[in-house]
Amino acid sequence: MLPIRKTAKQGKRGILERLDGGEIVIGDGGFVFALEKRGYVKAGPWTPEATVEHPEAVRQLHREFLRAGSNVLQTFTFYASEDKLENRGNYVAEKISCQKVNEAACDIAREVANEGDALVAGGVSQTPSYLSCKDKTEVKAIFRKQLDVFMKKNVDFLIAEYFEHVEEAVWAVEVLKESGKPVAATMCIGPEGDMHGVPPGQCAVQLVKAGASIVGVNCHFDPEISLETVKLMKEGLQAAKLKAHLMSQPLAFHTPDCGKQGFIDLPEFPFGLEPRIVTRWDIQKYARKAYDLGIRYIGGCCGFEPYHIRAIAEELAPERGFLPEASEKHGSWGDNLSMHTKPWVRARARKEYWENLKPASGRPYCPSMSKPDGWGVTKGARELMQQKEATTEQQLRELFQKQKI
Amino acid sequence: MLPIRKTAKQGKRGILERLDGGEIVIGDGGFVFALEKRGYVKAGPWTPEATVEHPEAVRQLHREFLRAGSNVLQTFTFYASEDKLENRGNYVAEKISCQKVNEAACDIAREVANEGDALVAGGVSQTPSYLSCKDKTEVKAIFRKQLDVFMKKNVDFLIAEYFEHVEEAVWAVEVLKESGKPVAATMCIGPEGDMHGVPPGQCAVQLVKAGASIVGVNCHFDPEISLETVKLMKEGLQAAKLKAHLMSQPLAFHTPDCGKQGFIDLPEFPFGLEPRIVTRWDIQKYARKAYDLGIRYIGGCCGFEPYHIRAIAEELAPERGFLPEASEKHGSWGDNLSMHTKPWVRARARKEYWENLKPASGRPYCPSMSKPDGWGVTKGARELMQQKEATTEQQLRELFQKQKI
Amino acid sequence: MLPIRKTAKQGKRGILERLDGGEIVIGDGGFVFALEKRGYVKAGPWTPEATVEHPEAVRQLHREFLRAGSNVLQTFTFYASEDKLENRGNYVAEKISCQKVNEAACDIAREVANEGDALVAGGVSQTPSYLSCKDKTEVKAIFRKQLDVFMKKNVDFLIAEYFEHVEEAVWAVEVLKESGKPVAATMCIGPEGDMHGVPPGQCAVQLVKAGASIVGVNCHFDPEISLETVKLMKEGLQAAKLKAHLMSQPLAFHTPDCGKQGFIDLPEFPFGLEPRIVTRWDIQKYARKAYDLGIRYIGGCCGFEPYHIRAIAEELAPERGFLPEASEKHGSWGDNLSMHTKPWVRARARKEYWENLKPASGRPYCPSMSKPDGWGVTKGARELMQQKEATTEQQLRELFQKQKI
Amino acid sequence: MLPIRKTAKQGKRGILERLDGGEIVIGDGGFVFALEKRGYVKAGPWTPEATVEHPEAVRQLHREFLRAGSNVLQTFTFYASEDKLENRGNYVAEKISCQKVNEAACDIAREVANEGDALVAGGVSQTPSYLSCKDKTEVKAIFRKQLDVFMKKNVDFLIAEYFEHVEEAVWAVEVLKESGKPVAATMCIGPEGDMHGVPPGQCAVQLVKAGASIVGVNCHFDPEISLETVKLMKEGLQAAKLKAHLMSQPLAFHTPDCGKQGFIDLPEFPFGLEPRIVTRWDIQKYARKAYDLGIRYIGGCCGFEPYHIRAIAEELAPERGFLPEASEKHGSWGDNLSMHTKPWVRARARKEYWENLKPASGRPYCPSMSKPDGWGVTKGARELMQQKEATTEQQLRELFQKQKI
Repeated sequence: MLPIRKTAKQGKRGILERLDGGEIVIGDGGFVFALEKRGYVKAGPWTPEATVEHPEAVRQLHREFLRAGSNVLQTFTFYASEDKLENRGNYVAEKISCQKVNEAACDIAREVANEGDALVAGGVSQTPSYLSCKDKTEVKAIFRKQLDVFMKKNVDFLIAEYFEHVEEAVWAVEVLKESGKPVAATMCIGPEGDMHGVPPGQCAVQLVKAGASIVGVNCHFDPEISLETVKLMKEGLQAAKLKAHLMSQPLAFHTPDCGKQGFIDLPEFPFGLEPRIVTRWDIQKYARKAYDLGIRYIGGCCGFEPYHIRAIAEELAPERGFLPEASEKHGSWGDNLSMHTKPWVRARARKEYWENLKPASGRPYCPSMSKPDGWGVTKGARELMQQKEATTEQQLRELFQKQKI
Repeated sequence: MLPIRKTAKQGKRGILERLDGGEIVIGDGGFVFALEKRGYVKAGPWTPEATVEHPEAVRQLHREFLRAGSNVLQTFTFYASEDKLENRGNYVAEKISCQKVNEAACDIAREVANEGDALVAGGVSQTPSYLSCKDKTEVKAIFRKQLDVFMKKNVDFLIAEYFEHVEEAVWAVEVLKESGKPVAATMCIGPEGDMHGVPPGQCAVQLVKAGASIVGVNCHFDPEISLETVKLMKEGLQAAKLKAHLMSQPLAFHTPDCGKQGFIDLPEFPFGLEPRIVTRWDIQKYARKAYDLGIRYIGGCCGFEPYHIRAIAEELAPERGFLPEASEKHGSWGDNLSMHTKPWVRARARKEYWENLKPASGRPYCPSMSKPDGWGVTKGARELMQQKEATTEQQLRELFQKQKI
Repeated sequence: MLPIRKTAKQGKRGILERLDGGEIVIGDGGFVFALEKRGYVKAGPWTPEATVEHPEAVRQLHREFLRAGSNVLQTFTFYASEDKLENRGNYVAEKISCQKVNEAACDIAREVANEGDALVAGGVSQTPSYLSCKDKTEVKAIFRKQLDVFMKKNVDFLIAEYFEHVEEAVWAVEVLKESGKPVAATMCIGPEGDMHGVPPGQCAVQLVKAGASIVGVNCHFDPEISLETVKLMKEGLQAAKLKAHLMSQPLAFHTPDCGKQGFIDLPEFPFGLEPRIVTRWDIQKYARKAYDLGIRYIGGCCGFEPYHIRAIAEELAPERGFLPEASEKHGSWGDNLSMHTKPWVRARARKEYWENLKPASGRPYCPSMSKPDGWGVTKGARELMQQKEATTEQQLRELFQKQKI
Repeated sequence: MLPIRKTAKQGKRGILERLDGGEIVIGDGGFVFALEKRGYVKAGPWTPEATVEHPEAVRQLHREFLRAGSNVLQTFTFYASEDKLENRGNYVAEKISCQKVNEAACDIAREVANEGDALVAGGVSQTPSYLSCKDKTEVKAIFRKQLDVFMKKNVDFLIAEYFEHVEEAVWAVEVLKESGKPVAATMCIGPEGDMHGVPPGQCAVQLVKAGASIVGVNCHFDPEISLETVKLMKEGLQAAKLKAHLMSQPLAFHTPDCGKQGFIDLPEFPFGLEPRIVTRWDIQKYARKAYDLGIRYIGGCCGFEPYHIRAIAEELAPERGFLPEASEKHGSWGDNLSMHTKPWVRARARKEYWENLKPASGRPYCPSMSKPDGWGVTKGARELMQQKEATTEQQLRELFQKQKI
């Protein structure tokens, strides 16, 4: 058995040093979904004020990912742009301030990163301002506010993630690039491309040209579909003779039935996704496939719990030469079941069993796939505009009319 | 909207005061499954040495349940009997000591309970000694060791939980009863009764006669089946003209396809259960049904995450008059989705939508039900005997032969 | 390989001679469902006027069952009682006459029976008169009209089938018994018993006491559930020390999700049952299990097509010593696929393949089970009364109100 | 309600007169699958010797389609080419002769066509000779033998159907065109195109250039996928500025999970397809969609039973102005259920009910989709070669090795 490595606490190498050296970098998992279930994030706005309100909860989740094998701790600054903290009745900017939320996120991530061999990445994501047709200068100003905090707190590198429009992603990369730090950029798109119809290959090319050293996808689609998309990005870069590291941070939900916009369109989003949660074995298959495709920055997004990240680290342990700390409590492919009291459970202590299992849903009255919503609106649509005030009853009634169930 | 109640920190009333007064008591959720996913518990032995090794992780989970509405924090002493800490190559008793694990569990639970309106319950569960045919005196001695710690740490009341044989449960209740503290007793059985064929109604009668003030079921079956079982217990008590409070702490996994022994027999146990995880809406239906059945101690077991406990507290908020702290981050029946950016998600901000949703599994290549294993062995069977040493390769090979996949 | 037996055309032995001699008797399949799909029977009334209107279609179906191995051809007189031919706007009695429909049915069955080794059985089934609370004398008079035809046409034996209430079935047996011919009686019930709550075991006892030599079940439930019911009948007879031959003619639809009243309650009845149709392999398993349970009259009801009957004959060919005529066009367990052009289909030419196949529905947007209707009305309910006139618009609207979809 | 039209028996107009005049032409359904279930065709070879052996069974099926609304009766000459009647141990050519099988097919079709308003179409299909790399002259000679019979029997027009390679289909069309009669040509392909990778649009263009007046698809894919393919054909023809009538005769099985080669690759082919059978309501949706796409020759292939054809005729009755004969026994969208005895079934007598029903499979232990085989062999592969002798045990064993189950 491979050794469990107590992660080194000093002399860390930078993200590009690692990737350029051919090392596998394991990302972390999804914060908003995990902390929503733990009681610290509100679905709907999905904003990260917990960094200020409940730092202990954020710290604990970072720690779990670190133990599971993450080499990068992303600051919990998802949707922490000023305009998003102030959208549709969510008065976080007003009550706490955008700056404090971002600063606290940096502090917590750094504190935990110092406990092991992990880098801190400052992250920005898409903005309501873009959807509301604000111009390039205005949108860039939004990103710059977060970047100022990241620079003050001296994060190790930067990630522009969760962009549905490559145009906005390019603007984000351009801003982040001003810092001089390495920039990664991931879009939340599938094989059909961005919301304006730009194919993945072209998205990748534009992002690299804007300055990203690492490109790929995150969120919105399951591991399998996300890898298809990264493959298209890789091919686009090859055709354009551009070089970049590849990255994937998919959902931990099965989404074979999504349209262009991914899991947000599924009727189960966000409170009925449980039957779609992927197993650790699904993740081991994903990690292997990502590796074989040449991806070296491998992590997850919404739905990824610490044990999913551990599954990446365990699958790629032969390549990396060691197991993560959390494997103290987990045997490879279920072999710890040999310690179970019941003999028929001990009989499951082997790879063949788990690799071939087709897990049942226990829901015979439910279907196996859903028809996604597809309202066909994007940037510029009235219903997507930023609106400081809460959605009104009248607005809601109009929406209910459009819907079937 | 009902007020969110910052839980009172002093002048707590005892468990029987509450129940006798007609109050709803909300239990907590499942520790071994939640902490396995977070990286602190090993599936197989399922023992709670994390209380010593990683108290911050145990503390955080207690806190999440408290915020979600739990009125009882069970000490994380599941399977913390001396014999179980020493089974099949799991040398916890040797490396840490049974006493330390139990003491740490009490300290952490008390620390968090003091942050709100929660009681601390010391818990014991079934033992390998019983399965290995040790006699009554020996088995009782095992329970007494844990009870000694609970008395020293002065827990508020005691729970004998997770018993497959009523005979052993009765022994546990008799030991706990020596303390003078209130005793609750739950069995991990379904409508077919205990492993020796004693029907639920008779189990309940025996437990009450042995001194339990609260009886019911925990683990092994889903909410629906568990309520059926409690109903049979209630009827048994009525027929015997006995009085007791009723309690239910089921799985948060759908198990319509289990046999007598519950989810342990399902081929998905324990690493492929994801598609069976219940939604918050399933739990709201469970909480209402449990309440209507007259159950007043309502909680969960394996699979119950903090948001599932919050769902109980939200469903029963009208009866209780207040919402739990974690509802600061959750609207009733999805109404916080009115703050979502996408209009079609805002259209889901209503009860009718979530109540009627039949969530898809996203797994069209998987079935919806499984055939459970049913090896038909119990107490006394050679393969169930305690064995200090790890399972040997030879023993495993014999088991693999018996299995199909 | 066993010989294909061109069926003997003379010197036929009677039904009791065969069964008393330990012979397996293969019944036929379902006429109303098969002929509905062929365009000759109307779903709703389900009456057999095709015997007069399209004798060639009825004859062809009889012939197919004969070739498939049926030893009994039931006259196509299902629901051919005078009161049913005159119900809810179905004016068959008026337009053709009850007598002509029954006579034509006898003539066609006899013509085809003469082509092989098959007996003709005259059949009666439950009546609207019983549901409408007509008394014993009136209901018996209804059966007697059909019996008169059967005697005139000299059928070989008689079957009282498709009864939901044992009281009415007993009346039918008493009438048929007046003829001196052997009488078989089957009820369309499941393990929960008849609509008045009489358990299967007691139903069997009453039928045998009334004069039936053969008892069992037909229709309403799938093979598996039907065999459970026959098992309960067998146990009832044993407990009462009565002797009778056992018979089963189940549906060819999977119905794991029925309530007490069987497939009529399923939302798919009668026009959406396709995904529930059983395969020939399901039938081979059924035939074997029925045989092992001691049933010697084995056939089918609604949904059974000729190839399902052939599957019974093929499964029990070793016991019977020969294959049916239609096996000229079918190899055992798919071995004729060795003649297929595509190599991967030739690779399916073996028992292991078909025995273990879990056939997919191709319907990922549909569930695998349904919630049955359960209106809880039976004999005496206003809505079940015979009504000569068509259902009115107003009556329909009232019913639509009660229903969800 | 529209009138039921007793079909005219004389003065029939030709196929092109009808289509040119904008009339809807309804095809017939699948013979080999229907007659296999009735006991007259052997799965594996799938050859039509029943025309000689059991003409009454073939005649009856033709008659059912005629009553259901078919305007075309195809001669039952599928796979009746000399080389196919002599393949892999199927000695039909030797025992009966190719000519007799084809002649009998023409006679039966004509006899039934004379009973109503239907045309007789002589049909040829792909040959083992092509797969075995015989040259154009040899393959054309095979088709010409069948054409000679069709000319002698004076069929009304000709169909080249069930071709996986457009090259062979073009050869067939060229031969049939020599007759001077109108020619229709359908390929058994999906949106991915023929086995050599020719896209549907190009296939259509080649077929029209070769002389086909009607082009489209038949078999191998479900209605939805088949319409996608025809749409591609239509677009191909438009791009090439060619005109032709469109035709579709899909499977009556749901096949969302097929690869390039269609349902033959599904593990359920051919003996486990039951759960995939489409309902009459699926067919009504198909007929409407086909019509809206501009298809005017609408029929079915394998799995289509008479009631499926009736569903086409009922859906398009408003456009055609009349209902088929078999609608005497069927009300529109289930309205005949108003005659049912049970009130909850009467409540299903309406379109909304059946249109929205998601029918359950009753098979909770089965998946909803399957992984198709994909051996990737076609024309020229050793294993596809014609072979007069039966497949040997050794050949079978080699194939079993390649397969999983």
